[in-house]
Amino acid sequence: MTFNERLNEVCAKRNSLVCVGLDVDLKKIPQFILDKAEPQVFFSQAIIDATIEYAAAYKINTAFFEAYGAKGWEAMAKIVNYLPGDVIKIADAKRGDIGNTSKMYARAFFKEMNFDAITINPFLGGDAVAPFLEDEQKGAFILCHTTNKGAEDFQKFNDGNKALYELVAEKVQQWNRKNNCGLVVGATYPDEMKHVRRLVPELPFLVPGLGAQEGDFDLATKYATTENGLGAIFNFSRSIIYNSDGEDFAELAGQRAKQMRAEINKLRILKTES
Amino acid sequence: MTFNERLNEVCAKRNSLVCVGLDVDLKKIPQFILDKAEPQVFFSQAIIDATIEYAAAYKINTAFFEAYGAKGWEAMAKIVNYLPGDVIKIADAKRGDIGNTSKMYARAFFKEMNFDAITINPFLGGDAVAPFLEDEQKGAFILCHTTNKGAEDFQKFNDGNKALYELVAEKVQQWNRKNNCGLVVGATYPDEMKHVRRLVPELPFLVPGLGAQEGDFDLATKYATTENGLGAIFNFSRSIIYNSDGEDFAELAGQRAKQMRAEINKLRILKTES
Repeated sequence: MTFNERLNEVCAKRNSLVCVGLDVDLKKIPQFILDKAEPQVFFSQAIIDATIEYAAAYKINTAFFEAYGAKGWEAMAKIVNYLPGDVIKIADAKRGDIGNTSKMYARAFFKEMNFDAITINPFLGGDAVAPFLEDEQKGAFILCHTTNKGAEDFQKFNDGNKALYELVAEKVQQWNRKNNCGLVVGATYPDEMKHVRRLVPELPFLVPGLGAQEGDFDLATKYATTENGLGAIFNFSRSIIYNSDGEDFAELAGQRAKQMRAEINKLRILKTES
Repeated sequence: MTFNERLNEVCAKRNSLVCVGLDVDLKKIPQFILDKAEPQVFFSQAIIDATIEYAAAYKINTAFFEAYGAKGWEAMAKIVNYLPGDVIKIADAKRGDIGNTSKMYARAFFKEMNFDAITINPFLGGDAVAPFLEDEQKGAFILCHTTNKGAEDFQKFNDGNKALYELVAEKVQQWNRKNNCGLVVGATYPDEMKHVRRLVPELPFLVPGLGAQEGDFDLATKYATTENGLGAIFNFSRSIIYNSDGEDFAELAGQRAKQMRAEINKLRILKTES
């Protein structure tokens, strides 16, 4: 089964388009956890236990583990391996380099670390992305339009006919020979998301920006999902994982994930029925 | 002292614009080294000992260490800390993410790992690059025009007035408020390098592509260096570190580094005298 087929199957089976983002910052987790032997692992496992019923995917933000060096990488490995086999495991690593280097990154995340998918920066072009697409079971979400203000510096650069983010979408469509490419399209730019969905009706979107960054749920669900109400996963990091400094942090994360799932499911069902 | 001032001072004092690239692939190093306890560390330390007299900088390609998980990160830390204080230590990591994540990457490479500089992918724009520029003593080499064929996919995208890589150069010039920004400009595209140098007469260039990728020495030295014959470092990875499968691997790396230094010094002296 290709990655994109599996993604839709998992979302359908789990009845969820929610992706839980593990941006595990030791300054933001409940401070009593710092006494544990492996705080990042302890926190993440508790979050996973509490949210697993409501999530289709987990996205590990590698920066938050690299910040603690080799120890952080060990923690990341433990967390990936703790996740059950039927959820999608995404390394939010935003890698991309010339071919022989990208090959090593693909090895790092797909073989050494056992992720199902990775986020990729397209700036270096097709030959830099290719090593991540060799295995049809492993997916690559390529940055198309990001959530931040700085997205406008280059992603909106326009040749009079199209903007760079639209060119990225078109190229990724061409690269999608094994049905394992997706796009990262931020919820904070709904108009641009709409354009991208029109350009690539079938490619899955990984959508950040609905939580702490306050993207619009209605528009994001409408534009990001495909005709069948699938084809997109919506990431929530800070808004799910940081709701309490107390013992109830995981319970509240579970409630929040449940609520996000319900909200998105309501909107995507409305869309497919309309 | 700002990073860019220090870079020029180190190059002048060491009379070298050579950067040795540590792309340490266990499949390519002499196979007898695999018997050592830490092959990546053993190999790198021997290469450093043999080349230190001829180099101004070392560039560690993080992919080749991440490919071995936490163990690779430990090796990377040992190698950075083995380098003497008066050479420039560059993490070739090509990172870049939204602000709160870039902050964690800056912490990872500048604090946890003790690098002096990092390579950055500009696709996410100015706010994603900013966290790497906060400390004037730490440098960021931002990808402008890469060496690979795929560079043409997006970096050459043109609005009728300028190409994306030229826009990147202009933006980086604006971001260089603390004199700690440089650009990555590949030697395999000399015409583009010439344009970039004209746009940013003072920014330092990190130049890959002269070794295994066969860029032109004459043109690269002419276009990449600034008026004073400094302002650029030229990276050699495979062409310096992989010259033998035997015990003489380090000795040959030293000879090659010496030769590269001489070749570049001859050309840059010609330039400043002309």
